[in-house]
Amino acid sequence: MRNGELRLNAYRDLRVALLGCGSVGAQVARLILENGDELAARIGANLTLDGIAVRSLDAERDVELPRELFTTDAERLVQGADIVIELMGGIEPARSLILLALGGGADVVTANKALIAAHGRELSDAADQVGAQLLYEASVAAAIPILRPLRESLAGDHITRVMGIVNGSTNYILDRMDRFGESAEDAMKLASDLGFLEADPTLDVEGFDAAQKATILASIAFHTEVPESAVYREGITGVTLEQITAARHAGFVIKLLAVAERLTASDGTDGVSVRVYPALIPREHPLAAVHEGKNAVFVEAEAAGELMFYGAGAGGNETASAVLGDLVSAARRHVVGGPGIPGSTHAEFPVLPVGEVLTAYQVMLEVRDEPGVLARVAGILAAHGVSAASVEQNTSSEGRATLIIGTHSAREADLAATVESLRADEAVAEVSSVLRREGRA
Amino acid sequence: MRNGELRLNAYRDLRVALLGCGSVGAQVARLILENGDELAARIGANLTLDGIAVRSLDAERDVELPRELFTTDAERLVQGADIVIELMGGIEPARSLILLALGGGADVVTANKALIAAHGRELSDAADQVGAQLLYEASVAAAIPILRPLRESLAGDHITRVMGIVNGSTNYILDRMDRFGESAEDAMKLASDLGFLEADPTLDVEGFDAAQKATILASIAFHTEVPESAVYREGITGVTLEQITAARHAGFVIKLLAVAERLTASDGTDGVSVRVYPALIPREHPLAAVHEGKNAVFVEAEAAGELMFYGAGAGGNETASAVLGDLVSAARRHVVGGPGIPGSTHAEFPVLPVGEVLTAYQVMLEVRDEPGVLARVAGILAAHGVSAASVEQNTSSEGRATLIIGTHSAREADLAATVESLRADEAVAEVSSVLRREGRA
Repeated sequence: MRNGELRLNAYRDLRVALLGCGSVGAQVARLILENGDELAARIGANLTLDGIAVRSLDAERDVELPRELFTTDAERLVQGADIVIELMGGIEPARSLILLALGGGADVVTANKALIAAHGRELSDAADQVGAQLLYEASVAAAIPILRPLRESLAGDHITRVMGIVNGSTNYILDRMDRFGESAEDAMKLASDLGFLEADPTLDVEGFDAAQKATILASIAFHTEVPESAVYREGITGVTLEQITAARHAGFVIKLLAVAERLTASDGTDGVSVRVYPALIPREHPLAAVHEGKNAVFVEAEAAGELMFYGAGAGGNETASAVLGDLVSAARRHVVGGPGIPGSTHAEFPVLPVGEVLTAYQVMLEVRDEPGVLARVAGILAAHGVSAASVEQNTSSEGRATLIIGTHSAREADLAATVESLRADEAVAEVSSVLRREGRA
Repeated sequence: MRNGELRLNAYRDLRVALLGCGSVGAQVARLILENGDELAARIGANLTLDGIAVRSLDAERDVELPRELFTTDAERLVQGADIVIELMGGIEPARSLILLALGGGADVVTANKALIAAHGRELSDAADQVGAQLLYEASVAAAIPILRPLRESLAGDHITRVMGIVNGSTNYILDRMDRFGESAEDAMKLASDLGFLEADPTLDVEGFDAAQKATILASIAFHTEVPESAVYREGITGVTLEQITAARHAGFVIKLLAVAERLTASDGTDGVSVRVYPALIPREHPLAAVHEGKNAVFVEAEAAGELMFYGAGAGGNETASAVLGDLVSAARRHVVGGPGIPGSTHAEFPVLPVGEVLTAYQVMLEVRDEPGVLARVAGILAAHGVSAASVEQNTSSEGRATLIIGTHSAREADLAATVESLRADEAVAEVSSVLRREGRA
């Protein structure tokens, strides 16, 4: 239904302002206009798309939309709205416009992960003050419903761990390397040609994008504010085809994981750990079957056990689906009355340093191929309290051997000290790979 | 926190009545009592467990609970409650007690799939009349958040298809047969020994349990009331190890699926189809990796694309997690004020007969091994408008050959007529297996 058309139903109108008209915004506008009657029946009110704020009135759009909807005056558009949908991206002016909207009592739906990661608490407090709703399901894993299940469905449970493949482009690259034996360079070029990478690819491959999503997941799962700067982060640029091939032979696949978990530090402090890194996952683990650009979030909770949420983690239409879901939720609440459910950060666990994290490791070494070297390496591990679960030794070349050591769960700080000692040892030519191992098979 | 203890926080109290104390009820009671402080912080109110209505005060419980909580007077318990949790199961007295609770303005949380499947509309209308909340996430796939995502997260999208493994015990049986080559009898005995089967195993193996869940999924996905009697239903008792082995060799696995989809009938009628039957799934499909007693629901939506929700589909603790999630949601809304979101059955699509369903099939035949038989069989298919996608012929014994025909998508009614003609043909000794094929690889 188009703006301004005669309406034959008896519903009241809800005025919707859309900020931004990129690939997601254009699809959101299309869906609101095309499915007007059906949305009205679901909501009990008509959604009237008041306008779309853009930087340039003349830019090309993915979808043909009525020209009279476009405006460059975002502030004015926001002021008349019942519900504001923010899809501009970036911090400013998105933040100020959302605060303006909430200040006026409007509900806000956004897909802006950078903004929520950096200013989620501020925006959520502003919403709570006036009983407005702030919804951002689309900010993590696009179409996959994950924030609402974490926040509501698991609200009576204790979530212990959230482990997600939340960046589609790095998953695409690692999946190509794993399944087709492509080099990192070739896989990355393909991802780039297909438009899977952000304009600045370091946001993807260095794990910045995943880290933003990890803070959002952690804050909801653990009722705790987690600043982006507290996320330990390693990207995939150090991952080689050799590592992936070796992992494959050992029954593992390498995935870039965003992990958020409850953790008790060595001094007894209860806290959380939030980290992004490439890790080995057993092939039988549900996350190992997440191919191409798909996303999935694996959740462990005390009572619910293991859950997984799987689907498309990007795409204009897919992200628009999540935005529309939030829009309908916000609108239904608007119609029946009553404030939004306040945000919850009552726990406020400290974010523990990565050194406190307990994980298993796989360490690959080039050593001198002579008697006593294995015992010496084992001694170095033991000296740091790291215990080996498996050792594989292959003669490589010219008096050298390759050792692949799988450890039991060890504290990250102990492992780091172990690797340092190994590097300093004269029997060790090279520590060629250190990878964490996540997920029981 | 125990009932009656001194409370040091400033929250108001919400009175909770629990009906039933079986494996789920006992865990729900335990979690409410053990996690009182944390739940209070999440909700903004104390949950006071007012009492637990049971049939016998002396029955053994899974969890030790204060004796003074138990009562046999369910009606009286319900009348004083803000939130009623119904975990008795069965239709009566559960239905009357829930109506009594809603009539008094209390919110209701239930895990009772049989009741929701049979009387969901009546209960939902009763809730809407007073603005109370009726939540039943635990009624389908236990711990897996699926109803809330369908109802809220996908509220702005068009769901086209929901395909679920929603009965854990039949999945366990089929999985044992597939992965360990066990006979149907052995796998069923094992499932029974492990306590995976309902007291009346026909509820599981004949698909009644899955059919109830299918009606609930369909009603939420398509905003349409679907009576249980309208669900086409086949169980797994006809599935043989031979079929599973043949499927395995052809790259498929057999799963008992509950399918709900939007469908246009041959006369152009827009409707829905809801059905439960064993079907072939490609090994690469995410549902094929759902092993043992796990459940998963695969959802296809126009904008969101393909989503999957995976986890435990049964268990006292797991189901209690979903019940607690609903309890916290209901309590939060109770605290901030405003009515529940009304149920939505505005679409009211007709449920189309199974004859209108379009699926691909695999038909296995024993035929006379002589020239012209294949052409004859192909002619029978063509006469009914069924088109073959693949044919495999193996000589079996004594002048007989086995034909395995994979069809393109065909109307169920046409396929049924085809099978009838094949059975009547003198060149065909036996139609040994007819299986539907669901899910693209």
